Amino acid sequence: MDTPTLIQARARLARINEHLLGKPGGRSQIDTPALVLDLDALEKNIGAMADYAATRNMALRPHGKTHKCPEIARRQIAAGAIGICCAKTTEVEAFAAEDIPSILLTAPVADPRKLERLARARKALGELYMVVDDPAHVDACEAVARLTQQTVNVLIDMDVGQHRTGVVGPEAVVALARRVIETKGLTLAGLQAYAGQLQHIVEVRERESQARAVLAQVTAARDALLSNGMACGIVSGSGTGTFDIDAEAQVYTELQVGSYVFMDAHYHEVRQKGAQGPTLVPALFVATQVISNRHPGFVTTDAGSKSMALDGSAPWVSRGAPQGCAYRTSGDQFGRAVLPDSGSLPLGARLELVPPHCDPTVNLYEMFHCVRGDVIEALWKIAGGAVS
Amino acid sequence: MDTPTLIQARARLARINEHLLGKPGGRSQIDTPALVLDLDALEKNIGAMADYAATRNMALRPHGKTHKCPEIARRQIAAGAIGICCAKTTEVEAFAAEDIPSILLTAPVADPRKLERLARARKALGELYMVVDDPAHVDACEAVARLTQQTVNVLIDMDVGQHRTGVVGPEAVVALARRVIETKGLTLAGLQAYAGQLQHIVEVRERESQARAVLAQVTAARDALLSNGMACGIVSGSGTGTFDIDAEAQVYTELQVGSYVFMDAHYHEVRQKGAQGPTLVPALFVATQVISNRHPGFVTTDAGSKSMALDGSAPWVSRGAPQGCAYRTSGDQFGRAVLPDSGSLPLGARLELVPPHCDPTVNLYEMFHCVRGDVIEALWKIAGGAVS
Repeated sequence: MDTPTLIQARARLARINEHLLGKPGGRSQIDTPALVLDLDALEKNIGAMADYAATRNMALRPHGKTHKCPEIARRQIAAGAIGICCAKTTEVEAFAAEDIPSILLTAPVADPRKLERLARARKALGELYMVVDDPAHVDACEAVARLTQQTVNVLIDMDVGQHRTGVVGPEAVVALARRVIETKGLTLAGLQAYAGQLQHIVEVRERESQARAVLAQVTAARDALLSNGMACGIVSGSGTGTFDIDAEAQVYTELQVGSYVFMDAHYHEVRQKGAQGPTLVPALFVATQVISNRHPGFVTTDAGSKSMALDGSAPWVSRGAPQGCAYRTSGDQFGRAVLPDSGSLPLGARLELVPPHCDPTVNLYEMFHCVRGDVIEALWKIAGGAVS
Repeated sequence: MDTPTLIQARARLARINEHLLGKPGGRSQIDTPALVLDLDALEKNIGAMADYAATRNMALRPHGKTHKCPEIARRQIAAGAIGICCAKTTEVEAFAAEDIPSILLTAPVADPRKLERLARARKALGELYMVVDDPAHVDACEAVARLTQQTVNVLIDMDVGQHRTGVVGPEAVVALARRVIETKGLTLAGLQAYAGQLQHIVEVRERESQARAVLAQVTAARDALLSNGMACGIVSGSGTGTFDIDAEAQVYTELQVGSYVFMDAHYHEVRQKGAQGPTLVPALFVATQVISNRHPGFVTTDAGSKSMALDGSAPWVSRGAPQGCAYRTSGDQFGRAVLPDSGSLPLGARLELVPPHCDPTVNLYEMFHCVRGDVIEALWKIAGGAVS
């Protein structure tokens, strides 16, 4: 399956831009489409969120599904994060293999093959947290504990309005928590309550109002656990849209923010208008080049829907074009940059775009091209894996 | 960059479903999300299009960007295709390394680094066709010919309404063709005229009417070349939406159809209503499993926008759920299957979906799980590479 030819082909891919490492102006010669990561901006975001969480006395457990990159996870932890979140078993495997000490898998798992893979990965971890919304998931956690002879920490996954995963209401939380407590090898650690439906609400008052309603639900569930004599040391959740509102309320103990490291076009919009908390800046860019320029007023580039996930706000051009340049994809492999004043750009001109939605955009690439100013400092691998 | 750990991680990924190869019922136990390819349906589509092209006396050069899979390209060629199209230099590299004899790169290239890579790949090819819409692209083709000491066949890329790449009008075609003829190492082979804007028009009369207008433009350009004593042996274009209309008109000599091998939800809709030509059947499916089922009437699955490109018609459930089940993604890593009669499905139940749009969906995966009936017969590698 993984023939030498294919491994060589991948190695070639990794080397396409290697010759530019450390060279002045390397960023502007990058082979495209490519993912560019501005290290100054990344470090600023990592530091700002770590400081913010520390001053609010909250634990920070950034979501690794955003970047799928052990190099970034290590920097988040060095800045103060207690570990990371993963969304998939393949991500747990990738991060555990790179010495990340503590992982919370934020989606419930019952599939026996995935449990075997989790158990193998768990051996390299100091701590594994899993979530449950069904007795079958509790049995699944027990299987991992049994296979590894190590404790699995369990959070009851609570549905706070997105109706994706999670149990509804304090009674169901308590009933499932009881089952966890009664199961050998498991430690009840608390609650997970991720309100994904709030994170993308652009209007700040609406976001606050809905977030407060969610916080009331989470408070009721936490209090139900405590009043039944059960542990609820951790309440994990929140996101890049609501972390400031959630930190203020002090119901969550742990922030699962993911996109803050990159700040895509959509989250930039969400946090522009009246949000509190630290300033976060765009750090992730899609580099593309002009491949055709036969018309006044626009040029065709090589970044389309295979280079950028399209859900989210429109991408914006951050580099390489005059103010007022608008971008839209034009099929899988092409984009169109519309230029003011019937302008044009030469063939080969490089543009950089702030992508609409960072997580599924990162998912399209093999690596980050890490830059400071005009220089490519490093290539960081993005952990692959379509399988969850 | 490509550390042993990462190569091992990829090899592990390739092995996740290897234990199911050849086992009865393996298809229903697949680790998810995964891309399933029905070989009977694939072979039917490959054969039907090859027969159709042969009876219309047209060359078939399927687009490799759809599948990025040498195994599929080889089967297309064995059935009668004269070679394949590629959209990216990385695809040319991947296919050339796997003994595909003749490739047409359908996007113009001027980037010097890509030209070096093309020249290296070209050595393994019998024939390379490139397209041009600018004198700089002609110089680029000349560079490849010079670097390889081998002829490059050149098609003048014509803009027939999509305004993405290509020159506009017969005069511009002739002027650029003259430049090709005058350039050492290049052979003028004809025209490329891809009308991407027509392929997705669902209403058949509208599609026909617009296709006829494009065919008139292409005829005028071809006749201008011929009346100037220039070669126009090849007119390459068409697609899965219009190939029957184009075959009837006998202006194109070569069909660049891509999606016909898989038939996604959108092309299924396009070809359902009044289209002529062979019957094409869905061959590509996204396998997903139920991970949460706390509500009557719907379940949550593990295939979201990281597992399926969302442009195109809505995905439909082809396996694993009762008639009338509707599917929508719910974030990056989750989907919702809505069941009739307030029904539900057990945790771990496998569903298969016909994805909205095949090309960018294939782009999300490492491999095809090739099935006949319930048995996984083979795993076929999808050539990676975000860089174009």
